[in-house]
Amino acid sequence: MSYSGADHAFMAEALRIAEGGRYISTPNPSVGCVLVRDGRIIGRGHSQAAGGAHAEVMAMRDALAQGEALAGATAYVTLEPCAHFGRTPPCAKGLIDAGIARVLAAQQDPNPLVAGRGLAMLREAGIQTELGLLQAEARESLKGFLSRIERGRPWLRLKIAASLDGKTALANGESQWITGPAARADVQKLRARSCAMLTGSGTVLKDDPQLTVRELDGQAWTGRQPLRVVLDSRGQLRPDARLLQAPGQTLLLVSQIDSAQRAALEQAGAELLALPDAHGRIDLAATLQLLGQRGMNEVTVEAGGRLNGAWLQSGLVDEIVLYQAPVLLGSAAADLADFSLARLADKFSPRVADLRQVGADLRYTLRFD
Amino acid sequence: MSYSGADHAFMAEALRIAEGGRYISTPNPSVGCVLVRDGRIIGRGHSQAAGGAHAEVMAMRDALAQGEALAGATAYVTLEPCAHFGRTPPCAKGLIDAGIARVLAAQQDPNPLVAGRGLAMLREAGIQTELGLLQAEARESLKGFLSRIERGRPWLRLKIAASLDGKTALANGESQWITGPAARADVQKLRARSCAMLTGSGTVLKDDPQLTVRELDGQAWTGRQPLRVVLDSRGQLRPDARLLQAPGQTLLLVSQIDSAQRAALEQAGAELLALPDAHGRIDLAATLQLLGQRGMNEVTVEAGGRLNGAWLQSGLVDEIVLYQAPVLLGSAAADLADFSLARLADKFSPRVADLRQVGADLRYTLRFD
Repeated sequence: MSYSGADHAFMAEALRIAEGGRYISTPNPSVGCVLVRDGRIIGRGHSQAAGGAHAEVMAMRDALAQGEALAGATAYVTLEPCAHFGRTPPCAKGLIDAGIARVLAAQQDPNPLVAGRGLAMLREAGIQTELGLLQAEARESLKGFLSRIERGRPWLRLKIAASLDGKTALANGESQWITGPAARADVQKLRARSCAMLTGSGTVLKDDPQLTVRELDGQAWTGRQPLRVVLDSRGQLRPDARLLQAPGQTLLLVSQIDSAQRAALEQAGAELLALPDAHGRIDLAATLQLLGQRGMNEVTVEAGGRLNGAWLQSGLVDEIVLYQAPVLLGSAAADLADFSLARLADKFSPRVADLRQVGADLRYTLRFD
Repeated sequence: MSYSGADHAFMAEALRIAEGGRYISTPNPSVGCVLVRDGRIIGRGHSQAAGGAHAEVMAMRDALAQGEALAGATAYVTLEPCAHFGRTPPCAKGLIDAGIARVLAAQQDPNPLVAGRGLAMLREAGIQTELGLLQAEARESLKGFLSRIERGRPWLRLKIAASLDGKTALANGESQWITGPAARADVQKLRARSCAMLTGSGTVLKDDPQLTVRELDGQAWTGRQPLRVVLDSRGQLRPDARLLQAPGQTLLLVSQIDSAQRAALEQAGAELLALPDAHGRIDLAATLQLLGQRGMNEVTVEAGGRLNGAWLQSGLVDEIVLYQAPVLLGSAAADLADFSLARLADKFSPRVADLRQVGADLRYTLRFD
């Protein structure tokens, strides 16, 4: 398949448009669609909140609202149009009915309900279809959804804010703030794009975080809140923990808990689930599998060194987002990840996928791929 | 004083030329000189090894060698021309004798033997003089020399190679290598520009480093070696330590040592000096003062977390050069600086003077100023 420069530009625009649904579409992927006729963009659309319109429908509505005709247009979509009746009718049928002439999809939909059937339906209707333009970029854009469908588990991100000497808090627990306001605002975006925020009961008992999205790009956030997930093997969370009062839902994963404590936490609004316990700690692979079954695409861990170290050693981490402040806190302070290596050759050597300045801090995006 | 764009460009060239003497001129500063006539550079020169020609003389020789006349030229020098007979005749006199018409100096020479007398001598001879163009840049270029003369102590740099989690070695001591070959080659430049490399006896006993310049820009180094300085409060160094065999001199600063051990270390080629001992550790301020008296301009510390922490807490550190590898070594590994903070407000917050990629690693240049 050979694509023109214009094809690349239009698909890149569809990927950019897809970001518009980033904070609203879960558990659906945020897809972008651009409609083009005679070399000109006539409509743009992205996924709406789950149950709402898909990107293709939004783009067609956008074109029609501007008085554009759809017949003969080309659609650039970041994910294969759906072929099934879900909460909305199949997008492939909508494109056929509109008289679209050509459809370019960056990535096939791995959902077994689609999995090529969307493009097949288009081809059977005489529409020219092409698959794979900017596929790597589309897979990046869709990584949480693809992880859940292809691997049966969410994309797992560790978010860490640390000093140059790798410390996340003083020995006395003081940690507000190591990084600056720009980095903390950036963390709000990580939370907003995450289906779930995960931490350990130790962090909740010590820092009493809310793990909510409070402000996004300077605006108070009133949208969807990620599910809070607390690994609380022995059911030690206090019913007055702030994250139990905060907007959104909290899921506690426990292995042993007495019935009075369970009742108190449920009374406080938490959902409790028992998971297998390995050496007194919740099984991490089982945790991820459960969160995948619950429709979680991206899960972000904001925890202490103990849980960070356990996740790293589990081999289940896809990404670390490390905010690094140009300060030194000293050896007595808390380490970002607790583990021990016997040989330097065993060190974790993630790929530096992105590195940029955020305010006075650096942000590393590290990938295990 | 108002300078033209050409003035700035010529002084910037003089600063660039000064780098040519970076690894050879100590304890003299490495100065750069550019001679200009009719808007054209006719000669360039930088300081030679101590006792050799100064930058102004080299630039005049360069011009003459190219058949250029010196009379009426303008000299751009990064440091005020000297006015005294040292190991060479005064440069101010040389410029006067050559008929130079105008002299621009970026920085006054704080050496009490000069301290304005060089420029005064030129003015008395009817030469137009100007002081201060690109002074900040010149002070950066001359920082070791200026520190020694103005503050009576060397410019003190900590060089640290660490992981993202701030670790410099595994618990078992394994540390070769955390950073990559490009970072290690860059460290050779730090050593070459340093008058002394300083470490602690603990590091020598554990890692047995040479602390020498071995290769510079891919070429085996046969030039000057920095003095090795080992803080060895209790005289624990072994006479077969590699740095005692390596080219160059080694100075051991001790506070208590028995005479047999002293004799063995002197036999192995070390010079021993007694310094005050505070709580079993060599006094760091006294160490710096001594090294200043010995003519040391830049001193680079390559030590473990214990000595790094002590230097940081002493408040005497001017600069940290931190090579940071994108790897994680875990909480059991050795910290880059041992100290404890009671309040986050007390954290060390150096200025990020420079940040760049060196191979696969980052290099932070952090300043306490």
